[in-house]
Amino acid sequence: MTRTLGEIAGHIHAELHGDPRCEIGSIDTLENARAGAISFFSNRRYLHLLKTTRASAVILKADDLAACPVQALVVDNPYLGYARAARLLYPDAPHAPGIHPQADIHSSAKVSAGARVGPFVSVGSNTVIGENAWIGPGCILGKDVMIGADTRLIASVVICHGVVIGKRCILHPGVVIGADGFGIANDNGTWLKIPQVGGVIIGDDVEIGANTSIDRGALDNTVIEDGVKIDNQVQIGHNVRVGAHTAIAGCVGIAGSAKIGKRCLIGGAAGISGHLEIADDVTLMAMTGVANSIREPGVYASAIPAMDARIWRKNAVSFKHLHKLAARLNRLESKS
Amino acid sequence: MTRTLGEIAGHIHAELHGDPRCEIGSIDTLENARAGAISFFSNRRYLHLLKTTRASAVILKADDLAACPVQALVVDNPYLGYARAARLLYPDAPHAPGIHPQADIHSSAKVSAGARVGPFVSVGSNTVIGENAWIGPGCILGKDVMIGADTRLIASVVICHGVVIGKRCILHPGVVIGADGFGIANDNGTWLKIPQVGGVIIGDDVEIGANTSIDRGALDNTVIEDGVKIDNQVQIGHNVRVGAHTAIAGCVGIAGSAKIGKRCLIGGAAGISGHLEIADDVTLMAMTGVANSIREPGVYASAIPAMDARIWRKNAVSFKHLHKLAARLNRLESKS
Amino acid sequence: MTRTLGEIAGHIHAELHGDPRCEIGSIDTLENARAGAISFFSNRRYLHLLKTTRASAVILKADDLAACPVQALVVDNPYLGYARAARLLYPDAPHAPGIHPQADIHSSAKVSAGARVGPFVSVGSNTVIGENAWIGPGCILGKDVMIGADTRLIASVVICHGVVIGKRCILHPGVVIGADGFGIANDNGTWLKIPQVGGVIIGDDVEIGANTSIDRGALDNTVIEDGVKIDNQVQIGHNVRVGAHTAIAGCVGIAGSAKIGKRCLIGGAAGISGHLEIADDVTLMAMTGVANSIREPGVYASAIPAMDARIWRKNAVSFKHLHKLAARLNRLESKS
Repeated sequence: MTRTLGEIAGHIHAELHGDPRCEIGSIDTLENARAGAISFFSNRRYLHLLKTTRASAVILKADDLAACPVQALVVDNPYLGYARAARLLYPDAPHAPGIHPQADIHSSAKVSAGARVGPFVSVGSNTVIGENAWIGPGCILGKDVMIGADTRLIASVVICHGVVIGKRCILHPGVVIGADGFGIANDNGTWLKIPQVGGVIIGDDVEIGANTSIDRGALDNTVIEDGVKIDNQVQIGHNVRVGAHTAIAGCVGIAGSAKIGKRCLIGGAAGISGHLEIADDVTLMAMTGVANSIREPGVYASAIPAMDARIWRKNAVSFKHLHKLAARLNRLESKS
Repeated sequence: MTRTLGEIAGHIHAELHGDPRCEIGSIDTLENARAGAISFFSNRRYLHLLKTTRASAVILKADDLAACPVQALVVDNPYLGYARAARLLYPDAPHAPGIHPQADIHSSAKVSAGARVGPFVSVGSNTVIGENAWIGPGCILGKDVMIGADTRLIASVVICHGVVIGKRCILHPGVVIGADGFGIANDNGTWLKIPQVGGVIIGDDVEIGANTSIDRGALDNTVIEDGVKIDNQVQIGHNVRVGAHTAIAGCVGIAGSAKIGKRCLIGGAAGISGHLEIADDVTLMAMTGVANSIREPGVYASAIPAMDARIWRKNAVSFKHLHKLAARLNRLESKS
Repeated sequence: MTRTLGEIAGHIHAELHGDPRCEIGSIDTLENARAGAISFFSNRRYLHLLKTTRASAVILKADDLAACPVQALVVDNPYLGYARAARLLYPDAPHAPGIHPQADIHSSAKVSAGARVGPFVSVGSNTVIGENAWIGPGCILGKDVMIGADTRLIASVVICHGVVIGKRCILHPGVVIGADGFGIANDNGTWLKIPQVGGVIIGDDVEIGANTSIDRGALDNTVIEDGVKIDNQVQIGHNVRVGAHTAIAGCVGIAGSAKIGKRCLIGGAAGISGHLEIADDVTLMAMTGVANSIREPGVYASAIPAMDARIWRKNAVSFKHLHKLAARLNRLESKS
């Protein structure tokens, strides 16, 4: 969608340095943008690309205006300005409502008039699909499911029985919501499956990445609060609660009954044990392992960074004796 | 399903302290249970919840009977009692047998009379679906597959050609069984794919979580023995063997040709290298990395727990020199 | 397919020690092979199996010829010889071209005459499916997708709009290509989704394992170069570039905008942070965490190996004070 530079400046609350009538049809990197495209500059590492950009205009901070060879939109937070401009230039495509003839909809399900249901979609009894929702090809919805207005299930998403999903959510392909939690009891050496009779409640404005799974609760519900953003390949166990506006990067695993605070940032491949609490405003760096509750906001980490494998091998051996090294150091100190 | 307290007591082998005719229709947490619901108490951390519960009855140990304000069922293992009671109150829903008109079944496939096959299911040639099996919507079964009696593929499960699955198994949405193993040979800088001509054998009473994948063998079969329970997002490589009644938590990766013993407990996000053996009765804590065989039963671990990132950064730097610290300590000791 | 030993020897460039007319119908392990089967020997750990094998012939090195009790094919690299022999004995099954009547193909899509499209496949507008391609049951292809000649999507693969896939690729079940990258901007405590307007370009001869996801770019494309081999459960973020002939084992996560070199070997469950570069010919051992660019070829690692949990617990505690241990050692040295 083409917009004028003036429209974009207004939309992102920017100070315009340039021609408000200049037409912008796309957004691109500093390197690739050409006439008709806008770009943004938020990382000083790429200053050389700013200086040589051929974009029609760049979204940037006032401090960087002097270095910009083209028109500029000055904002406090160029990355946020970019996000807003991109949303203006690339609005969600409207969809034609209707139910594909190759969908299988139970007679008791209620599909809103403005919703779209694609081919090879199965919808169970008493399930409700909200106004303007998009149920893409190959999605499977069990019985008693509720899908909020304007929510989009892109394709091949599975929503098990009784799951409630809020408004304006986006669920990417391969997502599974509401499969049984991992509830087993040991009965003299074999495992007895425990029926998982809780549900899953997903709030509004939640995004869930490809092939992510969120299990239903054992007794209570698993709850994902409003505005949570979850990347791909994430595993969320039964009875987990994720606080509002927390962001979870790819490959994270959260074990059963963990309670994650609001506005947390969970780095990629972090692992969180079950039955613990993480406070609001906690950041976990990538690959961090959390085995105990974290009570204070702050940044936490535990991953060992990569090193030359020859050095690593020696250090890994030393680690096996680390507590002995510490004891030996104590003895030396007491002698000296 | 409603049961009397007396029926439940009998089913779970409990000593009843209360009215055997009391009707119980559900099971819930100590906190949420109300009249008509039973609960259980197995973790002393929640003693305050036991004391204030409004459940009709609680499953607990004899030692905790005095603290219980309501009727009680006394057992040795309340968690197991809970599992049994839940299974009594929430039996698997019986399914109406039959093949959905929008399924695609090869003419040579054999679907037992009592099996149910959902919409958008594809079944290949010579595949056999056992008595009372449930093949949910969107499942894809290749040719020469065998699905045992009473096994349930919830939805969107893919079973590749020649895979054999036992009786009473449960496969959750997104599971992929029998995709090609990662077999490649380096041919002067490029990779030559090696045909994966083995199969996968899954025993009886196996449960496999959402989006988990188990590869077919290169030559021999990949084998999952009876009673194994696997959580979500697990990866099991070609020619792995998992011993009976082992439980594998979410996000675990097991590389090719690893042999895992019986009754092991594999913690979440553990990683197991290929071509090694793990003895029976081994427990791996969460995020443990196993690079060598483990010959003795016991508990093993390797993950570094989360700490304040400022402290972590210093420790991570020190770790890079750990073997030198050890050598320096040796020198100091020899001097002193 | 049955071949003579002479044909196999010629195909794998081996020196034949045996009867060139001997018929070989299968390939199997040293232990399981019987008359009519060929095997291979590449790992001296299995020397006892070579000495007792009942295979008709074994592919091996000249050095091991004397230990072989049966016919032999001598090559420099027996594992590569095995790969080549397996490809000769187990060629890809040819498929009958055609579109299944229960597929849903947009009228503007172009399906080549020799391609096969299975049941419950959805193909969007303007999508092109190349000659001899195989689109298995349950696959979902968005609009403007290009699938190269001879490429196979086994089953339940999702390809989002605009993705380009090369020739002779194999995509296993549950693969998702081109879902939105994890692009969000913080707007005063809540997250604003950034439209992901880049695409995904997959080269020729790429194999992608079950349940792996590769996100579309934010502005530029995500690129997987020719000959890359990716195992199961891998996550590749937006704008990642993976260099030609790199192999990525299962459960690996690669965060956005990372650039991986050519011919790298990425071990299982390794984690690679975003916005960094890894040189050509880098090997990462399993579970390695990479937080900074790696400029030099070589082998890198960081995982702590498993140990008895009682020892581990002490060492993990010592690790929390490791930088203090180092400082104390400095002080002692300066005193002595």
